[in-house]
Amino acid sequence: MSDTVVVGLDVGGTSTRATALTLAGERLGTGRGGGGNPTSHGADRAAAELLTALRGALAGVDPTRVRAGTIGLAGAARLLADPAGRAAFDRAWAEAGLHCPYAVHGDALVAYASGTAAPDGTVLIAGTGAIAAQVRDLRLDRVADGHGWLLGDAGSGFWLGREAVRRLLATLDSAGTPGPLGRRLLTELLGTAEVAARPRDTVDALIQAVTRRPPVELARLAPLVVAAAVEGEPEAVALIERAAAHLVDSAGRIRPDGAVTPIVLGGGLLTGDTPLAAAVRAEAHRHWPDAPVCRAGDGAAGAAWLAARELPEVTDPVALHALLVPATD
Amino acid sequence: MSDTVVVGLDVGGTSTRATALTLAGERLGTGRGGGGNPTSHGADRAAAELLTALRGALAGVDPTRVRAGTIGLAGAARLLADPAGRAAFDRAWAEAGLHCPYAVHGDALVAYASGTAAPDGTVLIAGTGAIAAQVRDLRLDRVADGHGWLLGDAGSGFWLGREAVRRLLATLDSAGTPGPLGRRLLTELLGTAEVAARPRDTVDALIQAVTRRPPVELARLAPLVVAAAVEGEPEAVALIERAAAHLVDSAGRIRPDGAVTPIVLGGGLLTGDTPLAAAVRAEAHRHWPDAPVCRAGDGAAGAAWLAARELPEVTDPVALHALLVPATD
Repeated sequence: MSDTVVVGLDVGGTSTRATALTLAGERLGTGRGGGGNPTSHGADRAAAELLTALRGALAGVDPTRVRAGTIGLAGAARLLADPAGRAAFDRAWAEAGLHCPYAVHGDALVAYASGTAAPDGTVLIAGTGAIAAQVRDLRLDRVADGHGWLLGDAGSGFWLGREAVRRLLATLDSAGTPGPLGRRLLTELLGTAEVAARPRDTVDALIQAVTRRPPVELARLAPLVVAAAVEGEPEAVALIERAAAHLVDSAGRIRPDGAVTPIVLGGGLLTGDTPLAAAVRAEAHRHWPDAPVCRAGDGAAGAAWLAARELPEVTDPVALHALLVPATD
Repeated sequence: MSDTVVVGLDVGGTSTRATALTLAGERLGTGRGGGGNPTSHGADRAAAELLTALRGALAGVDPTRVRAGTIGLAGAARLLADPAGRAAFDRAWAEAGLHCPYAVHGDALVAYASGTAAPDGTVLIAGTGAIAAQVRDLRLDRVADGHGWLLGDAGSGFWLGREAVRRLLATLDSAGTPGPLGRRLLTELLGTAEVAARPRDTVDALIQAVTRRPPVELARLAPLVVAAAVEGEPEAVALIERAAAHLVDSAGRIRPDGAVTPIVLGGGLLTGDTPLAAAVRAEAHRHWPDAPVCRAGDGAAGAAWLAARELPEVTDPVALHALLVPATD
């Protein structure tokens, strides 16, 4: 058993991370590749990044020791339904010298498993987008939101950025004076916090600055809202509260009232010590007072645990989770 | 004076309308061209459509009788700031045989003038987009919203379409059964009102159906919301109420509390006998109980009146309005 190695991969839009672990929790290696989502990058490019990350994690490891692997990525169902995508991943796996089977799971399940070993619970993720998923027996069950920026992602980084700009435009329409958050946005988007003599000129300039880029890039303004909320600016705090309410509302579409299973918070806006994470915890506590709320951690380690727990020699998957996945809270 | 002719043009995104009127209110001709907005169609194409509409209106009219003209179009300020655009319009004017000067005004002012002769008031327009403008001495003063679908247009046709789809997606997330409005949307977007065995498959199909087209085309779903509201479907009625609140909120950013000047409703969603128009009237009445609310009418006639009222022989512009602009309410 001590010879057994498991491999986990967390494939994201901007990076791919891999980790190789023994069942005793020894971290033999980690690797990193670029963004490897087959949907956005194409199957071949995604497979190449996967291979890069795998080679990093397996440097100096005899690949015949690897007995199980899991790949977590957004849109896992699409990959599984696409023979060319699956074949590209198979090739990367073989080129890394691996002969064991591997499983592909959604990134939401991997985020969940990086935060808890409980078979049932809820994962709530907010980054650029936002999605909530119910986990049953460590499989993704029902999903809420994740509808994309045009139709959903309520409470996400995109949502925070867009709403912040909308508040600023409304202030300028009313001939009001932008507050601290509005001035941050003006500086970020226009290079100056000054409002033009005709405020409509500033409105037009803001709209042009935003529409010049892809809409989803409004998410890059979310850190300004977070920073302003940290300083207690009422406008930013109100936006954070509304975002938290949206996120918990999404979770409530799939999570039963009175549930006591864990809620795992994931994504860039919820894994740090951010005001949004605090607001979501408070809001979730109001809805499900007896449920533990925990934080997603190392996705690659969570993926490795999902792989390891299926091995016949593993009798106590919860104890194994404590060994393999670094605690987050 | 009876020889004097004025010309008005209402230039929209899908059509350009022209009218030639005597100061006695005799309609000598009307003409129509295709969409003539220089911003979206280019200056030369816009000028060609303008000429087509002008020639229609002036067929059989001695062009030397035309003493004044007004062109109303969205983004009038941009045209005035663009020498090439202005030159193209000058050429069209000359090619139509016209020697008098012409003025260019925003389409919002022309809509306002098609509904009232009062020099001061508010115009509130909802079609694909939404904008409110304060009119002072028959010039556009401050403007609210009109920020486009990504950042604004709250309460517009785009907004109604997007919110209706969002409500449907939330219902499907919750494993609920779509109501009458949801079934209309499913039929329109997917060709069937049936929800898949896995509701998430229907969610994904809806998102794909919407994102396959330009975002602004969500506005084409607005008539479904309106039709459902006419039949009293609570979900549609609630959306209409929210849209009306957004529209009146935009007007409130620029219109003083207690104002008694007229409010003119324009745009495809507010000029008909629609539930949104009724809801906006009711909401506006709550905010400004002593203000008359009227409807925008023939924009080309409104433009012609704006031109005519500047002529030295016009001593009673309000009486002239009654002659030139067909009453709407």
